Amino acid sequence: MNPRARHGRDRHCGPRPGRPDPDTRARPPARPSAGEVWLYGHHAVAAALANQERRVLRLVVTAEALERLRTEPGVPPGILTRAHVVGRREIDQLVGEQAVHQGVAMLTRSVERALEDVLELTAGRASCCVVLLDQVSDPHNVGAILRSAAAFEAAAVITLDRRAGGETGAMAKAASGALDRIAFVPTTNLARAIALLKQNGFWVVGLEADGAKPVAAIDLTGRVAFVLGTEGEGLRRLVRESCDEVARLPIAAAAESLNVSTAAAVALYERRRQLGAA
Amino acid sequence: MNPRARHGRDRHCGPRPGRPDPDTRARPPARPSAGEVWLYGHHAVAAALANQERRVLRLVVTAEALERLRTEPGVPPGILTRAHVVGRREIDQLVGEQAVHQGVAMLTRSVERALEDVLELTAGRASCCVVLLDQVSDPHNVGAILRSAAAFEAAAVITLDRRAGGETGAMAKAASGALDRIAFVPTTNLARAIALLKQNGFWVVGLEADGAKPVAAIDLTGRVAFVLGTEGEGLRRLVRESCDEVARLPIAAAAESLNVSTAAAVALYERRRQLGAA
Repeated sequence: MNPRARHGRDRHCGPRPGRPDPDTRARPPARPSAGEVWLYGHHAVAAALANQERRVLRLVVTAEALERLRTEPGVPPGILTRAHVVGRREIDQLVGEQAVHQGVAMLTRSVERALEDVLELTAGRASCCVVLLDQVSDPHNVGAILRSAAAFEAAAVITLDRRAGGETGAMAKAASGALDRIAFVPTTNLARAIALLKQNGFWVVGLEADGAKPVAAIDLTGRVAFVLGTEGEGLRRLVRESCDEVARLPIAAAAESLNVSTAAAVALYERRRQLGAA
Repeated sequence: MNPRARHGRDRHCGPRPGRPDPDTRARPPARPSAGEVWLYGHHAVAAALANQERRVLRLVVTAEALERLRTEPGVPPGILTRAHVVGRREIDQLVGEQAVHQGVAMLTRSVERALEDVLELTAGRASCCVVLLDQVSDPHNVGAILRSAAAFEAAAVITLDRRAGGETGAMAKAASGALDRIAFVPTTNLARAIALLKQNGFWVVGLEADGAKPVAAIDLTGRVAFVLGTEGEGLRRLVRESCDEVARLPIAAAAESLNVSTAAAVALYERRRQLGAA
């Protein structure tokens, strides 16, 4: 065997615990395998490290970003000894130059959930909430909705798999850690998901510009599922027809529509307000 | 004179009214002069064309995008005869490849307003609302807040000039037309703006994670100015102290914060709800 190659291999065994090796180089930008994802950005990675269900396959950070991660109370210090300390450019190569990675990237397995998990999680809760997204595909919107859903204590965000796709780095970044705090459920069949939610006592409230009632006029204090569509097209007919009620938000007639993540946040807020949350 | 050059010049005289010339080429990507801005994206440009106060300095569109503009009821058909029909790449060169321009770009003068305009506009109105942004600089956030402000019928969004800067294409795109529907007011002195608003009967409500009262517990039905800071730092001390009240939103303790544009939308919604808007 070529001794140089061997030497090269040895250098990639990774840093010793407690002492990140500043010479360690990131591997080439290999596409993650199925079920794996590169997360990036401080909040997204800190939340993923704090989530005990996350497997850390590879953690690459700049020295500065590592110091910032050390200040996060939820992140077990032991995990950080596995970090590979690299330069900013190596991270650019891993997650793309467009990604605002803030010097942190982590290869991990997706923690997507099944709808059955959500039903189990919410079983017996008199008041709980999930959000369903019909055709919404922009990862920034899905991420922003995850973030608001976590802030307003929803249990899950359910998306149409073939549109939103699975967990992505851009989505996790926009979610700012929420992807590791609430359930993200890609599903192949939204109508089936709605039917299952109804069987499990959820009141299904669609949101549309021309909804029959203002959202504030609907009792949202029980088990509620909000359903939102895209800004242009709204809900597909069958999805809309499967809702128990269709609500509208009090926006000016001249304004074409709210951004879908704004509409979701307002509906989630209205539920919290009705519950007397402060 | 070289006859070819002359021929070339003639081709640049621009299309005749009513018949856009598909051969017209966009000029080189000259930086706009002070007070001028390239807007892009269908909704942003359609709203700018519908706004009688906008001067159209140059309008470049793809043939497809021009057809779409023709379907906008607010856009005077006469203006569209001045459009230069070009290819997508020419527009890339004008506004940058990263810009999601949808085949439409327009060079125009900024329509920024002064605070005095807003006071005049809202004079005598028993109920009205403005939004002030302290240090918020991201054009996507400012644009998203303009969009929600227009949807929930606020009169103006007031920003700190040296942070948010003036009107930009990215901001206008995120505002999705709202920049031409409500007043955008960059100011150099937020404390002075707050003082003037108070003198003019506005009740100034700051929004902070640790605000003294839930926003729903504050009467928002009169003349209200909301003040929001950045997600990390919140309001600066002096700005916070100049508020009449500081409100909080009912979010989970574990969630670090809402996105500032989400927080703004929720506050604006809460005001509309209190007013009984539907």
